Amino acid sequence: MSSYAARRIALRQELQATNLDALLVTNLLNVRYLTGFTGSNAAVLIDVNGDDSSVFCTDGRYLTQSKKQVPDLERLIERPCDVALAKRAKGRLGFESHHVTVDGLEALTQVADAELTRASGLVEKLRLVKDEVEIEALRMACAAADRALAALIGHGGLRAGRTEREVARELESRMLDHGAEGPSFSSIVAFGANSAVPHHQPTDATLHQGDLIKLDFGALVDGYHSDMTRTLVLGKPADWQRELYDLVARSQAAGRGALKPGVNVGDVDHASREVIEKAGHGSEFLHGLGHGVGLEIHEAPTLSKVGDGTLSAGMAVTVEPGVYLSGRGGVRIEDTLVVRDSGPELLTLTTKELVVV
Amino acid sequence: MSSYAARRIALRQELQATNLDALLVTNLLNVRYLTGFTGSNAAVLIDVNGDDSSVFCTDGRYLTQSKKQVPDLERLIERPCDVALAKRAKGRLGFESHHVTVDGLEALTQVADAELTRASGLVEKLRLVKDEVEIEALRMACAAADRALAALIGHGGLRAGRTEREVARELESRMLDHGAEGPSFSSIVAFGANSAVPHHQPTDATLHQGDLIKLDFGALVDGYHSDMTRTLVLGKPADWQRELYDLVARSQAAGRGALKPGVNVGDVDHASREVIEKAGHGSEFLHGLGHGVGLEIHEAPTLSKVGDGTLSAGMAVTVEPGVYLSGRGGVRIEDTLVVRDSGPELLTLTTKELVVV
Repeated sequence: MSSYAARRIALRQELQATNLDALLVTNLLNVRYLTGFTGSNAAVLIDVNGDDSSVFCTDGRYLTQSKKQVPDLERLIERPCDVALAKRAKGRLGFESHHVTVDGLEALTQVADAELTRASGLVEKLRLVKDEVEIEALRMACAAADRALAALIGHGGLRAGRTEREVARELESRMLDHGAEGPSFSSIVAFGANSAVPHHQPTDATLHQGDLIKLDFGALVDGYHSDMTRTLVLGKPADWQRELYDLVARSQAAGRGALKPGVNVGDVDHASREVIEKAGHGSEFLHGLGHGVGLEIHEAPTLSKVGDGTLSAGMAVTVEPGVYLSGRGGVRIEDTLVVRDSGPELLTLTTKELVVV
Repeated sequence: MSSYAARRIALRQELQATNLDALLVTNLLNVRYLTGFTGSNAAVLIDVNGDDSSVFCTDGRYLTQSKKQVPDLERLIERPCDVALAKRAKGRLGFESHHVTVDGLEALTQVADAELTRASGLVEKLRLVKDEVEIEALRMACAAADRALAALIGHGGLRAGRTEREVARELESRMLDHGAEGPSFSSIVAFGANSAVPHHQPTDATLHQGDLIKLDFGALVDGYHSDMTRTLVLGKPADWQRELYDLVARSQAAGRGALKPGVNVGDVDHASREVIEKAGHGSEFLHGLGHGVGLEIHEAPTLSKVGDGTLSAGMAVTVEPGVYLSGRGGVRIEDTLVVRDSGPELLTLTTKELVVV
């Protein structure tokens, strides 16, 4: 059985639990998760009774592609897909109320005989725990980022005089060289004092001897996103840079160590944050500890002070503490990992020793 | 007055016409259009009484950036912005019902004292007609694409043995060299028989002597998208290739010629399509003639057989007829143009003579 068919079976258990006869899936990422379809327009009607009663819909541009990618469901070629599928449904029909717009619901209401029922986050709930096919895609995405960074450093890409923009572009180009479909988000490259801005966007600022170099980037492979941050130094690190680095590295190790099935997400954040707070830098750790990654670069669970819920084996998350000294520089260290019963599996393999280039 | 302030004044006329006291703008592109803000989280409450009563909202990550980009509106730093702004509104409050989800409306309903009122497409209606600031951005986006193609050809980028993927990557890289923030969509590069697939995605297929080369690509500048297709031949064109090319070029010229204020969009499609139909290839022109471009790569108006509405001066559209001979090859020629009283202004300047490389 394909992993897609297995996911549809898992979804049917959710439909039974919520007393739905079918779910109209219109969020394209959810459609991809359930069918493997990668085009830009589609929807799928998942019937509680099985694939024989379920229907996939796309438009004429994707006839050939959808035959290859979705060989195992009835295919409807029509526009718009949500309306076409709603006409086919009977009984209690769930719709993705976190995705369907107010106007979109009106259009469905006008055509559906079925009883339209709000159903929010059913597929996202399944997506929280990755299957091994997904984890392999994440592994490849992380490997592309690891290799791109190694090649950037190995080819002298981090040298005095280069701009943040140039380095970002080379990093993204090298990810393509190593199998990425593209960057998984707009790369953060920050030199010197710019590294103190958590989400700094690359500028024409140039790299100078003694600068911290913060690189936060990732690759996209088979639709899955990797996410990694490394902070390096050009030339001999100053004492304050090394101390800051060591502090963040200890905090990050504590966060990784707390990743266990059954642990509350707030406690993972706390384990990491506590290290930084005890060193007196708590107010300079400006964001949450991490987030889920998968078909989206930011997805559930959120690892933060105010986060709720517990970890399960198979969740893929980032752990990314940072300390930002305004006007001087900041350090962030981030990995992508999978929660496992036997301890977290590290997917981003680049060293976390302080790299001096 | 900034162009953003002018757009807000124009929007207020729409609010008056629809009897709204304010509009809660949550579509990020519409927020950008009205304020200039380019971050990933924001909303703006446009009060009918003026900017003094209007409020911009984003989160803490964007405090500095929003001060620069939106200096002229009250600023609220809160999450989530839609809910925070809805609390501030009174009277009849329009919300973007084509953008707000069913769950999102529920959240607004729980906090708003105002009378939430469906208001669909008010900002999009303004965006239909571009102001000169927008047209200048489109012009620069088209220039980046023009220059990238010239550089690709000039540096021998289209030679036998190269793959579609390699050419796509070089084209996208050269657009960055010429000022693009990125490609405006995933480039279409199709060699030989692949050119007969309208939306072919680049593969490892290699370029051969005598192949048609279809390139459909664009650049993103200041958030505005360019869109251009050129079809070339590697080596001496066969007679059928030249005939096909000439036919599509005549059809495209007819479509461009029909772009006038007051003309029905269906008639523009017809003017171009008629040329191809008369030559007996009507069934091989598989798509509409064109679409609006701006902050989105595809936006209103749609130029097609079933299209409705008339053109106005200042609309930016593509004209892109194509004929696709399955298994042999296809030709598409596409420009981005602005409808003007004095005749269409061409923004994509690359020659439409058949280029032989």
